[in-house]
Amino acid sequence: MAKATSWSKPVTKALRADGVKVSDLNTSATPGFKGDKKAGEALLAERAGVLSDLQEKLYANGRSGDTRSVLLVLQGMDTAGKGGIVRHVIGSVDPQGVDHAAFGVPTPEEKKHHYLWRIRRKLPRGGQIGVFDRSHYEDVLVVRVHDLVPPDVWEKRYDEINRFERKLVDDGTVVVKVAMFVSLDEQKKRLQQRLDRADKYWKFNPNDIDERAFWPQYQEAYQAVLDRTNTDHAPWYVLPCDSKWYSRLAITELLIDALQGLKLDWPEANFDVDEQKKRLVRA
Amino acid sequence: MAKATSWSKPVTKALRADGVKVSDLNTSATPGFKGDKKAGEALLAERAGVLSDLQEKLYANGRSGDTRSVLLVLQGMDTAGKGGIVRHVIGSVDPQGVDHAAFGVPTPEEKKHHYLWRIRRKLPRGGQIGVFDRSHYEDVLVVRVHDLVPPDVWEKRYDEINRFERKLVDDGTVVVKVAMFVSLDEQKKRLQQRLDRADKYWKFNPNDIDERAFWPQYQEAYQAVLDRTNTDHAPWYVLPCDSKWYSRLAITELLIDALQGLKLDWPEANFDVDEQKKRLVRA
Repeated sequence: MAKATSWSKPVTKALRADGVKVSDLNTSATPGFKGDKKAGEALLAERAGVLSDLQEKLYANGRSGDTRSVLLVLQGMDTAGKGGIVRHVIGSVDPQGVDHAAFGVPTPEEKKHHYLWRIRRKLPRGGQIGVFDRSHYEDVLVVRVHDLVPPDVWEKRYDEINRFERKLVDDGTVVVKVAMFVSLDEQKKRLQQRLDRADKYWKFNPNDIDERAFWPQYQEAYQAVLDRTNTDHAPWYVLPCDSKWYSRLAITELLIDALQGLKLDWPEANFDVDEQKKRLVRA
Repeated sequence: MAKATSWSKPVTKALRADGVKVSDLNTSATPGFKGDKKAGEALLAERAGVLSDLQEKLYANGRSGDTRSVLLVLQGMDTAGKGGIVRHVIGSVDPQGVDHAAFGVPTPEEKKHHYLWRIRRKLPRGGQIGVFDRSHYEDVLVVRVHDLVPPDVWEKRYDEINRFERKLVDDGTVVVKVAMFVSLDEQKKRLQQRLDRADKYWKFNPNDIDERAFWPQYQEAYQAVLDRTNTDHAPWYVLPCDSKWYSRLAITELLIDALQGLKLDWPEANFDVDEQKKRLVRA
C-alpha cells in the first residue's frame, strides 16, 4: 500500500542532479516522497526486504560467474550520515555480498600512487554490492578546497574520472553516486551531540569544526563535481540529509532501482538436476 | 526474562570441544539451551541487539587506535549453515565493522604460497570482527581427506596452526573457532532442497554429493583437528547444526562472550571536550 502511494515520482528522477544548485538546496526536503517520518520508516522496513532479495540474486549470479556488480559511492560533508547509510541500509543485506571500503586521508603508500590506484583495488567483485564511504571524488573536493595539488592537476581529474567510470560501467558495474548534504545548522547540531555524549566522542574530530569555515568552498567544489561528472553512465543523485529516515529510504530505493535494472534471474543449474537428484538418493 | 532462564549453562561451556567425539555427536541437540525454537528465535532477536552494541564499541575503539579484534572461524561440511551464520548473525552488526573472507579452493596464485599466506592477508584489522568462512583448517581437512599433500606435510600443520594462532592471540585477536556439524541425513535433506528449488540451484555443487562418500574420513579429520588444535588460547566450539535457530543463537552468544571478554568501554576523547564545545558555538 505505502509503496504505491508514498512516492509522487521515482526517486531516480526526484534526486537526479541535473541542474541542481548546491547553494540553493533545501537539505530538510524529502523530494518525491509524500509521507511523513512514520510512513517513511514503515516503508523502509518493507523495502529493505526487497533490497535484500535482489542482492541475494546478484550474489547468486556472481557465484555462478556473472561479473556484474553495483557500486554505491557516498560523498558528503562530515555528519551527513554516510556511516548511518552503511549501518542501516547496507546492513539489511547479506554481509557476504558487500565489498565495503572507506577512503580517508591517503596513507603514505597510497600517496606514492596515482589517486585512482587505491580506488581500483577496492572495486566490487562480480556479484557484489560495493560501497565507497568517500571515494575518488575526495581528489576534487578536499584536495581542491585545500590546494593540496595545483589547480592544473585537479582540473584534469574531472574528465579522467568520467573516463574511469565509463570503463567501469562498460565492464559491468552499475555506478550509483550519491552526494549527501546537511545544512550548516544541522551539522552543528550533530557535532554538538557528539560532544555531549561520551559514547559519541569517537566520532568527533576537532578538524570537523575547522572544515565548517570552508563551507562555501566545499559548496563550490561539490557544484563543480555535479556540473562536470553527472554523466548518463554514472549519474549523481543529490540527497538532502537533514532527515535521516528519508536519506536511508531514498538510498534503499536507489539501490533497488540499480539492481532491478540488471534484470536478474536466478542462475540456471549448470548440472543435470534430475541426474543429481538420482545420485543424491543413493548417496 | 528469556535470557535469565533459557540457558542452563554458558554456551562457552556447553559447546567447548574438550573430549568431544565427533562420531558420537548428536547434531540435533541444543546443548545448554532449555527453550524451544520459538524461545530461541525470540532470544536471538534480543541478543542480536546486544551483539550489535558491543560490536559498535569494538569498532569505536578500533577507530581510536585499539588494535584488538575478534576472529570467528567457521568450519563445517557443506550445508552446515556457514552462509546462514554470516547472513543472519553477522548481518545484525554494522557492515563497516566486519572483515569477511571466504576460503575456497586455492587460486593458482594462492597455491604458489604457504597455506597460511592467504589467511594472513585476510586477518581482521583492529576494531573489526573478522569472519572466516572456511579457513586454514581446510589444509588439514579436505587436504588430508583427499591426500592433496603427503601425510608428513599435513602432519606438521597442527602444531604450526597452534603457533600461528598463539601469535595471533598475543597480537590482540580473540579467536573463536566453531566446528559446525549436521547429520548425514540432514545434509541429504538440505541438498535435496537445493535441487528442488530453482532459487537454490546456485548453492548446489555435484561435488557435494561426492564428498558424502568421505564422511567417515572427514569425521576422522575433524576429530584430529579438535584433538590437536583445541587450545586454551584459541578454543574450538562444537556446534550441532540441524536446528538453524540454535546454531545462530549459539554463535551470537559466543561472539557476545568474546566481546565482553575485551571489557570494552567507549574510547576517551582525545581532545578537550569543553574547548571544542566553545569552538563549535562560534563556528
